Amino acid sequence: MTVVGVDPGLTATGYAVLEAPTRTGDGPWRVCDSGCIRSNRGQPVEIRLDGIHGELDEVLARWRPMLMVLEGLYTEYGFPRTAILMGHVRGVICLAAAHNEIRVLEIAPAEMKKALTGSGRAGKDQIRRAVTRMLGLKKSPSSEHVCDAMALAVVGALREGAAL
Amino acid sequence: MTVVGVDPGLTATGYAVLEAPTRTGDGPWRVCDSGCIRSNRGQPVEIRLDGIHGELDEVLARWRPMLMVLEGLYTEYGFPRTAILMGHVRGVICLAAAHNEIRVLEIAPAEMKKALTGSGRAGKDQIRRAVTRMLGLKKSPSSEHVCDAMALAVVGALREGAAL
Repeated sequence: MTVVGVDPGLTATGYAVLEAPTRTGDGPWRVCDSGCIRSNRGQPVEIRLDGIHGELDEVLARWRPMLMVLEGLYTEYGFPRTAILMGHVRGVICLAAAHNEIRVLEIAPAEMKKALTGSGRAGKDQIRRAVTRMLGLKKSPSSEHVCDAMALAVVGALREGAAL
Repeated sequence: MTVVGVDPGLTATGYAVLEAPTRTGDGPWRVCDSGCIRSNRGQPVEIRLDGIHGELDEVLARWRPMLMVLEGLYTEYGFPRTAILMGHVRGVICLAAAHNEIRVLEIAPAEMKKALTGSGRAGKDQIRRAVTRMLGLKKSPSSEHVCDAMALAVVGALREGAAL
């Protein structure tokens, strides 16, 4: 089961494509691909969105995940403008999923934290350690965005029935 | 000069393609195309976004406007979740603009109202009357979304130098 987690942001969008162990086969998790798509602050928003969409679309077309996992919308955003711009990015990410016939699953932040660490209020360090351990990484994910994308992919895969 | 105004919404996105009078040629405004793109509440967000994107992309490819006009982001949103979902729609609309090489111009709500009626606090009725009069329509726009899209297109075109 191949799953992609995405952490959307206009400046930096993290993604991680994981192959999850299944109940029938076994073996460890495999990180197929991961990275951070960056866009240039000096460019118009529509050009930045086009760049993010294009790069992610290539990743999806290459790996053909069966599921995309995004953080669920929560309602306590401190900066409405930032949140709405993040909404723009989510929009083009969802569109890339639709074009590649990939279902989108939303996982609430607290649910993701709880599934990985046992606590819905875990901090970033705890999440990073949990992801590094579960995926058997030799070193921590290269960025916070990639780490969040990995965390979402793991929890989404588990929810869909990957073997632990 | 052909301009498209778009009023983004997940349930209903209004659009209006107008041909504006120019300083060299003259003649009245022409409404080339207008309508409301609706999506089905029962479907997943990514499928709804795909439908909105696809329909708008067809309109843009057919009319090839030189400019897309969107309402500028404002910061006083009463419902953050709704605003972020609207952000998703704006994202796929901007993407359609980028794919069709159309520049996106944002007009603040107060600026749009002021340009049309002389008051930045004009109500919906005043806007509707102003749009109907300026465009020489025989009857008012078919929906509030179409009316807002027309208003944005008119003000965007004026800002870009259409003759009044």
